[in-house]
Amino acid sequence: MSTANAGAPRGGIDLGGTKIQAVVVDSGHAVLGEARLPTPTEGGPEAVTAAMGAAITEAAHRAGIETDALAGVGVGSPGDVDSRAGTVTSARNLPGWEGEFALGAALEQALGTRTHLGNDVQVATDAEFELGAGRPYRSLLGVFWGTGVGGGIVLNGHPWTGRGAGGEIGHIVVRIGGERCGCGRRGCMEAYAGRASMERRARQAHKKGEKTDLFKIMEERGRTRLMSGVWDRALKRKDPLATRLVDEAIEALGAGVASVQNVLDVEAIVLGGGLGVRLGEPYAERIALAMQPHLFDDLHPPAMHVAALGDLGGAIGAALLARAASVRAV
Amino acid sequence: MSTANAGAPRGGIDLGGTKIQAVVVDSGHAVLGEARLPTPTEGGPEAVTAAMGAAITEAAHRAGIETDALAGVGVGSPGDVDSRAGTVTSARNLPGWEGEFALGAALEQALGTRTHLGNDVQVATDAEFELGAGRPYRSLLGVFWGTGVGGGIVLNGHPWTGRGAGGEIGHIVVRIGGERCGCGRRGCMEAYAGRASMERRARQAHKKGEKTDLFKIMEERGRTRLMSGVWDRALKRKDPLATRLVDEAIEALGAGVASVQNVLDVEAIVLGGGLGVRLGEPYAERIALAMQPHLFDDLHPPAMHVAALGDLGGAIGAALLARAASVRAV
Repeated sequence: MSTANAGAPRGGIDLGGTKIQAVVVDSGHAVLGEARLPTPTEGGPEAVTAAMGAAITEAAHRAGIETDALAGVGVGSPGDVDSRAGTVTSARNLPGWEGEFALGAALEQALGTRTHLGNDVQVATDAEFELGAGRPYRSLLGVFWGTGVGGGIVLNGHPWTGRGAGGEIGHIVVRIGGERCGCGRRGCMEAYAGRASMERRARQAHKKGEKTDLFKIMEERGRTRLMSGVWDRALKRKDPLATRLVDEAIEALGAGVASVQNVLDVEAIVLGGGLGVRLGEPYAERIALAMQPHLFDDLHPPAMHVAALGDLGGAIGAALLARAASVRAV
Repeated sequence: MSTANAGAPRGGIDLGGTKIQAVVVDSGHAVLGEARLPTPTEGGPEAVTAAMGAAITEAAHRAGIETDALAGVGVGSPGDVDSRAGTVTSARNLPGWEGEFALGAALEQALGTRTHLGNDVQVATDAEFELGAGRPYRSLLGVFWGTGVGGGIVLNGHPWTGRGAGGEIGHIVVRIGGERCGCGRRGCMEAYAGRASMERRARQAHKKGEKTDLFKIMEERGRTRLMSGVWDRALKRKDPLATRLVDEAIEALGAGVASVQNVLDVEAIVLGGGLGVRLGEPYAERIALAMQPHLFDDLHPPAMHVAALGDLGGAIGAALLARAASVRAV
């Protein structure tokens, strides 16, 4: 826990609802080792912490070191993250994690190195800002199109998270009184564009007899949920239900992200998340097109990029937290 | 144009689509004199500039001085304001002001003192932040509910205007494919909540035979448009059409302002603008209530206040521009 090893490799963990991605990077942010484990679906925060420890240990081994030789480990977490206290509260897409859990202390004990917590979406945005598609810009909106729709904001080179709950772009209202969202509210952008909502709507339509190969593809791939790869395959096969639901998702993203742009007027948007990274450039262009009719300053649309760090962006961004903290310690 | 008179009274002009409000303030921001003139409806930028000059001259006379004794005059203007160049472009709610006009130079010549241009909504927000209802806070959203719906943003004590076109909260989409907005787009918050849209919808409904006293009240008050005072009177009389349209405006403001809050997570919202100031506290509370079901962090809603500087906020905020510039010049 000294600052002597500030130049040593650092760890980063992206804690997601379905998977835990860990990386070990060198001082130039190059990935020395990585590992991915499924997020436990039971056992509460303790089981999740154990899996996080296993993932970063495996990534460290692949980099040829033990975790206690890391300069630190950063974590990008869902829920309410208190980075000073090292706690995570109300991580509702994780098993039995409604209350407060001292994730930082638990991981430090398991790993023998300092840990640093941050918001999952914000660290992924910071990574794109510093190392990825956002490098040319000073202001940025990260749009993470995955299970939900998350947003990360960089203004004037600094993250903006408000009082701690900012960036919830998935829950801006695009249709008053519209579809029910996973959050319980109505008409949120995420109610149309989040993968979880899209799956819920696909199951309802399928049940009503609408034709689709989505669930056949899901089974062929040995999945129980409509992961990004399933949607991608179905779209390539021109599946009518998948096409309709993705069209509606893009319509919602167009209106919602344009609304955020009308407020923030950032230089660039970086599209990440499971669906964003999987569907990539052609869909980033479709979202930009769908935004255009709603942009107030339509002569100056923001630049639109797909996240350059791809699936590893969240974990690499988490590793930045450990770097920043090491620098501060010096 | 020296800095010797930095402690001298300053002028501020709020250039609106219907009226020009001018103030002269002392170094403690107390109003020494004020004047209001209607905005010319023809004659282009030159006629508007002449009226602005007349308004600030009258305000200065009421303060017992000539305009060339002012330390400077700030202007809060609609349209695209280039404060460095001293130009205003595309002020579309002003007569014949589509192109670029060197407002700063024209006013300086007329007044014999330096002028400083800013965005009308942003200077009004800055005034509330520094002198009004926003004083206790570091982050703020100004919601100006008037002819349109404008937004001013203060984050970490500093205005945020993006690349210059930020804060356009009136044009966030609250209903995809919804009502046509004055901007030509569909479903904007302003299409439901802007006074101009509300008037357009009232005229359509009246034409179709819907019962209302709105236009009778308008005529009684010698008006040709449904100004804020007309709506206020009609609401007090429980006019059914006025009630319905204001209910819909509040529904749209609830969804739209909550959406902005979900993104920015500011500490407080200050409600200004013609309708906001006229309808006041009970309607600020109704908007806060309408926001609640759409707030992601619904346990921590932002504080909600009516603009403390009322109708003069824009002009007092404009005068701040002259102060800031004087300070910089020293």
